Amino acid sequence: MSTSDWLRTDIGTTTADSITVRGHDLAGELMGKITFTELAFLLVQGRMPERGETVLLDAVLVSLADHGLTPTVLAARLTHTGAPESLQGAVAAGLLGAGSVFLGVVEDAAVFLVGVVGKGAGDEAGLLAGADAAVAARLDAGGRVPGLGHPIHKVEDPRTPRMYAIAAEAGVLGPHLRALEMVAAAAAARTGRALPINGAGAAGAALADLGFAPEIVRGFALLARTAGIVAHLAEEMERPMGLPLFRDIDERLAEGGR
Amino acid sequence: MSTSDWLRTDIGTTTADSITVRGHDLAGELMGKITFTELAFLLVQGRMPERGETVLLDAVLVSLADHGLTPTVLAARLTHTGAPESLQGAVAAGLLGAGSVFLGVVEDAAVFLVGVVGKGAGDEAGLLAGADAAVAARLDAGGRVPGLGHPIHKVEDPRTPRMYAIAAEAGVLGPHLRALEMVAAAAAARTGRALPINGAGAAGAALADLGFAPEIVRGFALLARTAGIVAHLAEEMERPMGLPLFRDIDERLAEGGR
Amino acid sequence: MSTSDWLRTDIGTTTADSITVRGHDLAGELMGKITFTELAFLLVQGRMPERGETVLLDAVLVSLADHGLTPTVLAARLTHTGAPESLQGAVAAGLLGAGSVFLGVVEDAAVFLVGVVGKGAGDEAGLLAGADAAVAARLDAGGRVPGLGHPIHKVEDPRTPRMYAIAAEAGVLGPHLRALEMVAAAAAARTGRALPINGAGAAGAALADLGFAPEIVRGFALLARTAGIVAHLAEEMERPMGLPLFRDIDERLAEGGR
Amino acid sequence: MSTSDWLRTDIGTTTADSITVRGHDLAGELMGKITFTELAFLLVQGRMPERGETVLLDAVLVSLADHGLTPTVLAARLTHTGAPESLQGAVAAGLLGAGSVFLGVVEDAAVFLVGVVGKGAGDEAGLLAGADAAVAARLDAGGRVPGLGHPIHKVEDPRTPRMYAIAAEAGVLGPHLRALEMVAAAAAARTGRALPINGAGAAGAALADLGFAPEIVRGFALLARTAGIVAHLAEEMERPMGLPLFRDIDERLAEGGR
Repeated sequence: MSTSDWLRTDIGTTTADSITVRGHDLAGELMGKITFTELAFLLVQGRMPERGETVLLDAVLVSLADHGLTPTVLAARLTHTGAPESLQGAVAAGLLGAGSVFLGVVEDAAVFLVGVVGKGAGDEAGLLAGADAAVAARLDAGGRVPGLGHPIHKVEDPRTPRMYAIAAEAGVLGPHLRALEMVAAAAAARTGRALPINGAGAAGAALADLGFAPEIVRGFALLARTAGIVAHLAEEMERPMGLPLFRDIDERLAEGGR
Repeated sequence: MSTSDWLRTDIGTTTADSITVRGHDLAGELMGKITFTELAFLLVQGRMPERGETVLLDAVLVSLADHGLTPTVLAARLTHTGAPESLQGAVAAGLLGAGSVFLGVVEDAAVFLVGVVGKGAGDEAGLLAGADAAVAARLDAGGRVPGLGHPIHKVEDPRTPRMYAIAAEAGVLGPHLRALEMVAAAAAARTGRALPINGAGAAGAALADLGFAPEIVRGFALLARTAGIVAHLAEEMERPMGLPLFRDIDERLAEGGR
Repeated sequence: MSTSDWLRTDIGTTTADSITVRGHDLAGELMGKITFTELAFLLVQGRMPERGETVLLDAVLVSLADHGLTPTVLAARLTHTGAPESLQGAVAAGLLGAGSVFLGVVEDAAVFLVGVVGKGAGDEAGLLAGADAAVAARLDAGGRVPGLGHPIHKVEDPRTPRMYAIAAEAGVLGPHLRALEMVAAAAAARTGRALPINGAGAAGAALADLGFAPEIVRGFALLARTAGIVAHLAEEMERPMGLPLFRDIDERLAEGGR
Repeated sequence: MSTSDWLRTDIGTTTADSITVRGHDLAGELMGKITFTELAFLLVQGRMPERGETVLLDAVLVSLADHGLTPTVLAARLTHTGAPESLQGAVAAGLLGAGSVFLGVVEDAAVFLVGVVGKGAGDEAGLLAGADAAVAARLDAGGRVPGLGHPIHKVEDPRTPRMYAIAAEAGVLGPHLRALEMVAAAAAARTGRALPINGAGAAGAALADLGFAPEIVRGFALLARTAGIVAHLAEEMERPMGLPLFRDIDERLAEGGR
């Protein structure tokens, strides 16, 4: 295999007097003209988003950026305690916990819904049948239907109705978001217990509707979370939590717990 | 020290029926109303940006997101080759190389310029004197003035004039961007060699003008770079480079190099 | 739940005049008396290894430490290129690629063999039947039997017979290593194609024989690999490969590949 | 520059029927014949250690492997909470906090002592003068002398006298360990306050005496720490601390701290 088969990227190139991103001149065509959210869409999909797509992608990123003092944020702050000279290390540590348990739901929901939509006939009846079949298969296998239920928001996740409203207003409410509602209804009918669609599930469905492959959907959750981690590290620099937390634990260990 | 002294965050909280970020209701006040860039500003500074500030921050993030096949992007793609199941690991590996050599310039420039501006009397004459003194001190110590020169863009970094134009149009061209021009002029006068202001330096100055502490400036470079890394990983999934690169190196090693 | 239920560790404690690891005084009982390999065993299992166990664990760690210029080593070296001030970042980047594709085999083999041994009646006939049933189930499901075959060592992986000989001599050749041989024979009989047991598979079997839970087996592969990565980073400091590799790729990209 | 100038490694190579590490056949000459500690020495230095060197390196690694529930261990355990499927991610997160504040002392001490020994005339009088001059320079610059003092072991770090005794018995007590004692004495004389040599400082001196360049010394601290992190992750799998810690913090936050 010659190098030209694999050593190339369509994302960006640099020459002595220009920087090109996805075929656009960075300085002349992108800086000052598109937002970072539009650039993120362009970088991954290779085309500019429509206005409604940008609105929905912004809503997704805004919804996922911060959730207070999560385990991943604590990991980032504790890492900063030990290596304050390496901000990238603390951010990386914070991202490494964004795996299957927390942020994984965004990806799981997208994978599940792409399966539902892909098998459907394209019309509402097809989606309904596909959603019910997928839910039945998942429950029969003893699995959980992704995107439903939340440990804190037991009645309703406030992000979910908002995401649907934004998508509808922007004219980009697509088959994956619609299928997720059918999935929630099918799961309630089959289990006898209605669980609310959670914000991570709605985000996964929205990203699938925006045309992102389910394998890269987690990347947008990571992008959003990076903003939250950076904010926590800025706060950690001004008001350290890592060292007091460590000392508190040390004292409680010395007391034999409490 | 009681726990209440250190165990608190001003960034965000979650209750059963609401999520609050920097005092704003996430679903009702932020989703669908602000962009991800505005949220990142809000998360770190605790206040909403003005319109001009958002424009400049978007320009900074857009300018830093991608630079083609850099060592950090290669590290991310190679990590994906070995652990395709962990997207967060590949993104983290890509960020870990964003240290002193490449992205560090953004921070170095901000630190240097905050020093210049902080010592100045506030007027142009004070800035000029401060810039010259700081350049003289750095050169006397055998150091390099940060933010000047570029290995590829030897005459002009195309991002720099664009960043200044955007900041001026948006009405947010502040003392750090102005000081950087004076620093470039002072360095040229003292060394007899004019070096262009590079894009990383302009980005660092712009972030300082936007009110970010120099210690957290690198965080925005990491945020921008995350979007580029995610795009490269999406491309890697479709058209792998990691394994062919590895095999190519293996073959060349077997030939004893070339 | 009171804190004492979860806030405790059996691994180590520190007081003003002593450091205790797994109930042993670090300075008085461990330093100078046990090797690092024995300590790693003690740390994870909570008991001192027998002499034969130490010999086999050393052989496993020695066998897994380095494999030349792998993708993970390249990722570590490229990360060092960008962030030479953060050795821990370069080591972490190198470990992050030790996922399912390369080092995962060690864990996969251990999990598979623990399943075979756990179901067996304990005697050789039981093991044989268990191995054949597990292989049949895996092949029927369209999966691959872990621990067999190698892209380079097509006839025999030189580490494998050596691992068996060492385990036998040390008196610790247990059911998992024995089961792996049966698994290889069963797979050959069922597929008509004999694949050699690879070194990663033998290492996984040996670690299971040493009493490590399959979920932590990958941890020893990571420990071994850390030594190899540190060596590559020491070489990188003396003779950089990251930057030339990056430039080489840049040149080839400029030529449009080759 | 031709590829052969930079694309080569002296560490290891693999062919169809052999694996070679630092010129030794891995299966025939290393597995079962040397310990993992000896391999780590061989990998980095390119030569086999003498018996006394192995004893001292083992003591160093044993002394640095675990320190109970440190911030870095907590970061690793919390990362596992979010991404239990990626053991390498949790280990990497644990290593990322091994920066300037905690493990950096090992490197700082080595760098400082290499400076002292390098300037000395080689005899005891030269070392004494070099130690005093280096201490004076550091204190005059307002800095801290590395390797002295400990927040918990205020009178004596139990690892230190043990490290000296082991090095002496093994016949490898070299100029860096000797210089560290002189440095401690000089610092006490100049500040009027005697601080004990801490274990990290003794480890750094020992690694320098073993011939490791100060830039790679931190790598051995990372290697040692990896064993401790793996043990904590094994314990985390059996008895989770990450989730209860997170919930405990959540409850205390809800109460407004305590």
